[in-house]
Amino acid sequence: MHSRASPFALAPGHGHGYAPLMIYFEDLEVGTDTEFGSYEVTREEVLDFARKYDPQPFHLSDDEAAKTYFGRLAASGWHSCAMTMAVLARYSVEHQQAVLGSPGIDELRWRKPVYPGDTLHVRGRIVDKTPSRNRPEMGSFRTETIVTNQDGAAVLTFTSIVLIRRRGSDAASA
Amino acid sequence: MHSRASPFALAPGHGHGYAPLMIYFEDLEVGTDTEFGSYEVTREEVLDFARKYDPQPFHLSDDEAAKTYFGRLAASGWHSCAMTMAVLARYSVEHQQAVLGSPGIDELRWRKPVYPGDTLHVRGRIVDKTPSRNRPEMGSFRTETIVTNQDGAAVLTFTSIVLIRRRGSDAASA
Repeated sequence: MHSRASPFALAPGHGHGYAPLMIYFEDLEVGTDTEFGSYEVTREEVLDFARKYDPQPFHLSDDEAAKTYFGRLAASGWHSCAMTMAVLARYSVEHQQAVLGSPGIDELRWRKPVYPGDTLHVRGRIVDKTPSRNRPEMGSFRTETIVTNQDGAAVLTFTSIVLIRRRGSDAASA
Repeated sequence: MHSRASPFALAPGHGHGYAPLMIYFEDLEVGTDTEFGSYEVTREEVLDFARKYDPQPFHLSDDEAAKTYFGRLAASGWHSCAMTMAVLARYSVEHQQAVLGSPGIDELRWRKPVYPGDTLHVRGRIVDKTPSRNRPEMGSFRTETIVTNQDGAAVLTFTSIVLIRRRGSDAASA
């Protein structure tokens, strides 16, 4: 999956010569959708993650999962978040966003089970951006992230808050 | 770390003879604090998680982290969530809670960096519990979870929503 209309697209006149094309706060456009990429869910990885981080019976065996809403072996919700982050981080690094981390997440919802064999598709929309009041070198933006499976069903949604440098705040953007 | 005053403590008269002492919706007491346990953060695990799920430069090297708020290599926020879940899941399984999964998380905040060598302590308080309107066999409860490091500083907080069976909804509780 590739982005079709990226809110991270460079603003007109954004020229850096031979400098890296870092994406800064000023380059973000509120309201545009981005497709960040996809992730193949494997049974082995579901079990590995669950053994390490979420060893509840329904994340470890089909038989135990059959007694619950999941029906069969399903990924830990935190594993779904991690797989989503893998897609987002890959995008952020490839597109050289000057991201400084995240203070948090709101309204995270595991809407449907994620099963081995599923393909997750991650897309998002920047809903707002705000310059920092105290720190002139950065701003924040919020993205509504939606993760769907191969059937187009939303399996995970959340709103992330992300910190990003402002242009002129580091050597690369000078 | 062990629970000192568990909201999952059995209600008076809760006797099952030789049956497993499963903890059901009816056994949960709103307002009591529980210490769920602790987790040692290792450099190797921080790097393993980041390579797989959050390969942003500041989660992969001290040098890159030194350019950011983190100062030195810091765990992915999602890794902190996963380590917290490891503590919660271990507690839930050991205490035989009849947990059915979680629909989501609210107000997740990564308050301070988590570093290799840190020890995370996970505690929580049940803030409310609600019988399901549509499904008489289950209810939900919300827990405010606080994760602190060895210095007592809160590094991660969130409110989780958890589904749990009601007593009498399965063979074990009959």
